[in-house]
Amino acid sequence: MNGLLTDLYELTMAAGYFAANKHEETATFELTIRRLPRNRDFVVAAGLHRAVDYLMNLRFTVNEIAYLRGLPSLRNADPGFWDYLETFQFTGDLFAVPEGTILYEGQPVLNVRAPLMQGQIPETYLLAAIGYETLVATKAARIVHAAVGREIIEFGTRRAHTPEAGVLGARAAYIGGCAGTSNTLAGYRYGIPVLGTAAHSWVMAFASEAEAFERLQRLLGERTVHLIDTYDTLEGARTAARLGRPLWGVRIDSGDLAQLSRDVRVILDQAGLPDARIMASGDLDESKIAALVEAGAPIDAFGVGTELTTSADAPVIGAVYKVVAIGNPGNVRYPVKSSPEKHTIPGAKQLFRLPDHDVLGLSTECITGAEALLKPVILAGKVIETLPDAREVRERAALALRDWPAPGRKTELSPRLKALSAKTRNAEQEAEAIPV
Amino acid sequence: MNGLLTDLYELTMAAGYFAANKHEETATFELTIRRLPRNRDFVVAAGLHRAVDYLMNLRFTVNEIAYLRGLPSLRNADPGFWDYLETFQFTGDLFAVPEGTILYEGQPVLNVRAPLMQGQIPETYLLAAIGYETLVATKAARIVHAAVGREIIEFGTRRAHTPEAGVLGARAAYIGGCAGTSNTLAGYRYGIPVLGTAAHSWVMAFASEAEAFERLQRLLGERTVHLIDTYDTLEGARTAARLGRPLWGVRIDSGDLAQLSRDVRVILDQAGLPDARIMASGDLDESKIAALVEAGAPIDAFGVGTELTTSADAPVIGAVYKVVAIGNPGNVRYPVKSSPEKHTIPGAKQLFRLPDHDVLGLSTECITGAEALLKPVILAGKVIETLPDAREVRERAALALRDWPAPGRKTELSPRLKALSAKTRNAEQEAEAIPV
Repeated sequence: MNGLLTDLYELTMAAGYFAANKHEETATFELTIRRLPRNRDFVVAAGLHRAVDYLMNLRFTVNEIAYLRGLPSLRNADPGFWDYLETFQFTGDLFAVPEGTILYEGQPVLNVRAPLMQGQIPETYLLAAIGYETLVATKAARIVHAAVGREIIEFGTRRAHTPEAGVLGARAAYIGGCAGTSNTLAGYRYGIPVLGTAAHSWVMAFASEAEAFERLQRLLGERTVHLIDTYDTLEGARTAARLGRPLWGVRIDSGDLAQLSRDVRVILDQAGLPDARIMASGDLDESKIAALVEAGAPIDAFGVGTELTTSADAPVIGAVYKVVAIGNPGNVRYPVKSSPEKHTIPGAKQLFRLPDHDVLGLSTECITGAEALLKPVILAGKVIETLPDAREVRERAALALRDWPAPGRKTELSPRLKALSAKTRNAEQEAEAIPV
Repeated sequence: MNGLLTDLYELTMAAGYFAANKHEETATFELTIRRLPRNRDFVVAAGLHRAVDYLMNLRFTVNEIAYLRGLPSLRNADPGFWDYLETFQFTGDLFAVPEGTILYEGQPVLNVRAPLMQGQIPETYLLAAIGYETLVATKAARIVHAAVGREIIEFGTRRAHTPEAGVLGARAAYIGGCAGTSNTLAGYRYGIPVLGTAAHSWVMAFASEAEAFERLQRLLGERTVHLIDTYDTLEGARTAARLGRPLWGVRIDSGDLAQLSRDVRVILDQAGLPDARIMASGDLDESKIAALVEAGAPIDAFGVGTELTTSADAPVIGAVYKVVAIGNPGNVRYPVKSSPEKHTIPGAKQLFRLPDHDVLGLSTECITGAEALLKPVILAGKVIETLPDAREVRERAALALRDWPAPGRKTELSPRLKALSAKTRNAEQEAEAIPV
């Protein structure tokens, strides 16, 4: 299961490591935020739940192996490689920052320490799983921050890159601080509050807007949110006002939201409905929401879809998955890649969080007064404790985001990591890779 | 199965239609490209295979129904609604343009004609399924076009919005003209050529670059592609040249690709390897590729990931799913939404393609000499013929893209559609929706 959900070269390399009898050599791979997404000063880590599911269930079925055997690129694979795949399972270790942790440029999200082949194959999956949810959790945090206490409801599944991504996006958005999602499966699967009212097609399906509103009210009671902009927003508001309670409020999905919300507020207030709320939606993002809040628009909640679920202004995260140490105890090498633009820091690392800065050190170090953020999650192929659920993760993130993270926070290298890095870099100018 | 993978409001509305005894009323919903993505003059339609799978397998399990019954928004649902969901299956019709069809702004991708409830629930899924694959197929077409005959290999799964989206992105990229993908599962599932070589971690896993290259060659033979930029690109090229054949070629993944490819070409030629090819990769998109082609860089193939699989410059498609006709034969209403920015054209439509323009008409019209693009796919809940596989779709798209589509192609409304639109629009100024 899931064995083929990877780039072919991971499997080609796996076959090559097998042929070179290196597949059982222990290696440490590091998944790092090499570059922050555009417009971001930090990210909110998310997606670990899927990394764990994936590693624990990584298998190759008989049919999958038969398919691989037929591929030209694997024609020369050692027969023993196929036996190995048949009984493949992940027996290594996973260290990761908890979901909901704030990370800055250059910081690791997780380490995989495993036999070389087992560490190599997960690269593709882990990057995509962690990358997407981290993008959305981060975007959600920004949007929630811009709304200054007003609720954000995520409803972007229809714009997600596949419907299934929408389910995970909903979870990530909730972690980032959204109050709930429109995605029903996300509610079912992750226990996230699901919310929703009605679409324009509802209003259009009845002979009149009034009938549509009245029918909705009968169904939803005090959860009723009338979508008032199908024909004319202020007329819609008057119709809603006439129908009165029970009512949560109204939603405006188009037009000049600042002006319309003021006019609608007056209509609701004059009808004796001061507690009826106004929700706004329609291609909103953090800057539009900040502008509406700044303008004092009487909007109580925002529905955000497209921009959130696709992280549209920054749909890509510059995460990488690199081998940082290879070899069994007593004979560990620290490979470094040193192309002009891309330089890696070798060694299995730990990320230490201190009040005003972070330190990247070796995994064997200990720094007094710091929190070691990379925590053991899987050891020797066993999950060592249940992961927190979405609600707990959301609380963790909220705590970390309470004081909005300052841009430009420093990540120092520990003296020992600096020394290792310098040593390998110098040595690498002579040999291509060195034993340390 | 899949029943909950939708926005809650689709299900709330379904319950409401049931309560209003409207759920069996026939409705036509239209999925339309309301606005083209940024930087796009057209799209290449894709994703229909998933729309069909979804509609044919749309069910609600007992556990899912139990979950829904517990939701506050559905507390007042009619008991009969739950029975209805238990035996729910799609019994309607689906008309769609074949995958690989070029579409322009304002054109429909598909129509669902079904009992109102059955047409409403799929909105969320269909938009996301069609939207994502269409984005990627379109981006691929642009990239392939920019490469002027050089091969494009897609390898973006690691940047996809979830690993699973990568599988569908690979299929869409292939449809758009890519030669193959790195995604193994896409190869297994869709019969797409899978390609791949080795990563930097491969080179770093051996004591020397030469050993890594030699090992790869032993495994891949004439499929060998040495990744030469781990340490020093020109040194890497010399090492590859020394090892000689068998060899497909080399890959450069960083640096000044135009200059490096020229220098590497010289090294390979001087070593008597004029048939060794050069592949370039590293954050490429259509404009960077066009510039490299324009500069005459001796690059034979491009590997493209991030920008392709996320459609990074335009990660969102402005597709909408709107009800355009409601009511049983003899009593059909044509609802129109007429907010200032969003005006819909009513009626079940057909899209007619003529040599130099398109005509949007009523589904009952026939235009001599035109191809009617919306073709029946599901009728009365049955798939009426097997969908073409990815290879056939790719050929269809290639044919349509052979003469690169001119921007600004016109879509006219047929006189009958214009008349219906005017009639409903005028009438709508008096009543909120009218029977025609």
